[in-house]
Amino acid sequence: MILLKPIKFIDSNMNTLISDLQTLIRQPSVSAKNEGIEECARLVKKILTKSGISSEILRIKKGVAPIVYGEIKSKKNSSKTLMFYNHYDVQPAEPFDLWDDPPFSGKIKGKKIFGRGSTDDKGELITRIKAVEAFLKTTKDVPCNIKFVIEGEEETGSAHIDAYLKKYKKKFACDGVIWEFGYVDSKNRPIIGLGMKGLLFVELSLKESVRDAHSSLAVLIKNPAWRLIQAINTLRDSNGKILIKDWYRDVKPFSKKDLELISKEPFDEISFKKEFGIKSFVANKKGFEAKKALVGGPTCNIAGFISGYTGEGAKTVLPKYALVKIDFRLVPQMDPKKQVKRLKAHLREKGFSDIQVKVFHGEAAARTDPSNPFVAQVQEAANESFESSILNVSNAGTGPMYSFVKNLKAPCISIGSTFIFSRIHSPNEYARIDLLKKTTKCICLIMDKFASS
Amino acid sequence: MILLKPIKFIDSNMNTLISDLQTLIRQPSVSAKNEGIEECARLVKKILTKSGISSEILRIKKGVAPIVYGEIKSKKNSSKTLMFYNHYDVQPAEPFDLWDDPPFSGKIKGKKIFGRGSTDDKGELITRIKAVEAFLKTTKDVPCNIKFVIEGEEETGSAHIDAYLKKYKKKFACDGVIWEFGYVDSKNRPIIGLGMKGLLFVELSLKESVRDAHSSLAVLIKNPAWRLIQAINTLRDSNGKILIKDWYRDVKPFSKKDLELISKEPFDEISFKKEFGIKSFVANKKGFEAKKALVGGPTCNIAGFISGYTGEGAKTVLPKYALVKIDFRLVPQMDPKKQVKRLKAHLREKGFSDIQVKVFHGEAAARTDPSNPFVAQVQEAANESFESSILNVSNAGTGPMYSFVKNLKAPCISIGSTFIFSRIHSPNEYARIDLLKKTTKCICLIMDKFASS
Repeated sequence: MILLKPIKFIDSNMNTLISDLQTLIRQPSVSAKNEGIEECARLVKKILTKSGISSEILRIKKGVAPIVYGEIKSKKNSSKTLMFYNHYDVQPAEPFDLWDDPPFSGKIKGKKIFGRGSTDDKGELITRIKAVEAFLKTTKDVPCNIKFVIEGEEETGSAHIDAYLKKYKKKFACDGVIWEFGYVDSKNRPIIGLGMKGLLFVELSLKESVRDAHSSLAVLIKNPAWRLIQAINTLRDSNGKILIKDWYRDVKPFSKKDLELISKEPFDEISFKKEFGIKSFVANKKGFEAKKALVGGPTCNIAGFISGYTGEGAKTVLPKYALVKIDFRLVPQMDPKKQVKRLKAHLREKGFSDIQVKVFHGEAAARTDPSNPFVAQVQEAANESFESSILNVSNAGTGPMYSFVKNLKAPCISIGSTFIFSRIHSPNEYARIDLLKKTTKCICLIMDKFASS
Repeated sequence: MILLKPIKFIDSNMNTLISDLQTLIRQPSVSAKNEGIEECARLVKKILTKSGISSEILRIKKGVAPIVYGEIKSKKNSSKTLMFYNHYDVQPAEPFDLWDDPPFSGKIKGKKIFGRGSTDDKGELITRIKAVEAFLKTTKDVPCNIKFVIEGEEETGSAHIDAYLKKYKKKFACDGVIWEFGYVDSKNRPIIGLGMKGLLFVELSLKESVRDAHSSLAVLIKNPAWRLIQAINTLRDSNGKILIKDWYRDVKPFSKKDLELISKEPFDEISFKKEFGIKSFVANKKGFEAKKALVGGPTCNIAGFISGYTGEGAKTVLPKYALVKIDFRLVPQMDPKKQVKRLKAHLREKGFSDIQVKVFHGEAAARTDPSNPFVAQVQEAANESFESSILNVSNAGTGPMYSFVKNLKAPCISIGSTFIFSRIHSPNEYARIDLLKKTTKCICLIMDKFASS
């Protein structure tokens, strides 16, 4: 069987996978700060080329992170095209002092590789590249046409992926998309994700006076931190319910099939709580309720709050400015633009029109129909490589899946090597080497099954 | 008249005053960070010695900032002793990026000296030293005994001044204290301060999980920023009224004399608002109400709030930790220890016992009786040097005046060179050279009048 060769190749070439991943981690690429983006794009192109995949750097306009595009046509089967969507940018590494090793070290400790991006998404990307390479090196061909779309703005909300997908609609045409990540649960079962939540990221800020003042003047000068706190305290109750008028109005309810899949999905509450050192969930959710929230619960989360003096010790200052960063997770049929209008109307109605609202690019949610044949192909491959798998109606996180579904009309499925406790977006992010290997093999199997269908 | 000589000496020696002040500013001495404290104490001792004042470094225990003590006995009149209380430590200079010049540069631009501490309190200190020096250099004597008590922890709440005052009660014995500062209003009138508010500085914090999480998990993991915001939002209403049970219970009401002095006190609302770029005051206070608030209004001020990611751009993180720094100004008869108990009881009663309360040293408020003869002496001196003056029942700010009144039984009065808009505790703090000169002369006149009384 032809598939034995690439699988064997993966087993014997893990060292190259690991060193290529380390090389990628060691190139910081923080899109939020425009740090190392161009350098990382060039590095990814180099790694694609080295693996035998022809590649180019695509651009839409100056100041926008380029897309690294890779393509290889199948000699024996050019009727089907599989796309790998990934990203080469990473989240900021702050707070630096909570990392045990420098965040861009790519240090190996035991069977883990540490570093920002080690899993999200440089780890996932390397599994796709190495799966293709395994076929090329052992069979001089790939089972189906392959396209790589590797963007550089995913962590800041993929502001231009929609524009890229529109501009390169023909170039990017495909029959199925393997998404940039895929979680693996605490029992090492890969989670096959059929959807993603949307996201609306906003900054609310208030400037009261032209300069900070001595806090003795707080009898007279208004404190913007107080006012911002009063304002955002109207957004959400202590059980997580969002209090903005009509916030939930367009939410599409779960289908029977959704609820069936959710009920089947395992969720290890004990491990989850242990990992985060917590005793209970928001609104004391448990079991089925907790699972439903992960799949389809909208949120209003404070991602950051800053005002005044936050260093060591006491400083009696009355700050001139306060800022809060809030992310709202959205579920199917919630339109980010409509939700922004609702947020602004809420602030106006509550008397907080003086608060500035800065909107970062919003994403709508998307889901792939569980009955699409692509779903079964991926699930078979996962079962073979990982010995089990879980179908997930929607991931709790966000990606620009809606843009792909809308522009390419192709089903999108996430499957990958992201261990659920691998601390993505947090200090000491790591990738598990065993999962990198299994995922690379799984991608090989998906290519094969997808080609033969 | 003997006083003409020192006054003339001050006029001809302003360059030395300025360069000594620059030397002091260039030595950072941030007590909140224990930065440069010992170095600055030694520098102050050197400047005292250079001015002819015998001095020593006093200590109570390791790790506590030393007091620089200076003393010079009058040859002709040793029956009366005047004390100058000042401090050599400064507030942190953050945020650094809002300074036009480096905060410890001591740069002169026009008729101003810029830098952290240029006014508060190195500028004030230099006026006291130079007044004494003017007498010594021109008359080889001082009109009365002089004592300098220069501490290094004022900006963090003078945690050990009480211990120093207890330990050195005999050494520090005196008949009157000139306080470490004195405001000068927008019309260049010195404000003679007879009292100070107290201060209670606390940090409230909450840790929810052992690490930051991806914000998609906000459906389940509680956000400590939300909870902290809910908690502190119960402390105060939007008009500044503190909602903690019995918070105002022990407040001593204004006397008739207090209200009379307050009503006489000018307050330039227009200049004040212009300086800060604001349109209205807390609770829309105006005129007499605004003046009463400055003299005797308790506050609950957010001095700092931090949680999560506060850098550039978007980061979808669920923070593990949130912290707020709050300062409460206290007025006569409010006991800091009692108020802490009330705050803690409030949090308990509102269901927020999980919030950590860290108490920084609290100060009680203090006031000197307007009928004390020392008050008239200082007022006469101020009227002569500045051509006018204003009596103020209590400053809106805080200092350890209560410790002096309690331990030394001496009246304390503030008079000095702190222009009300000189941005103390804020970026671009500056001292006005004209006010440094007038204050130095005023201190000479006070010494003379105090000695002859």
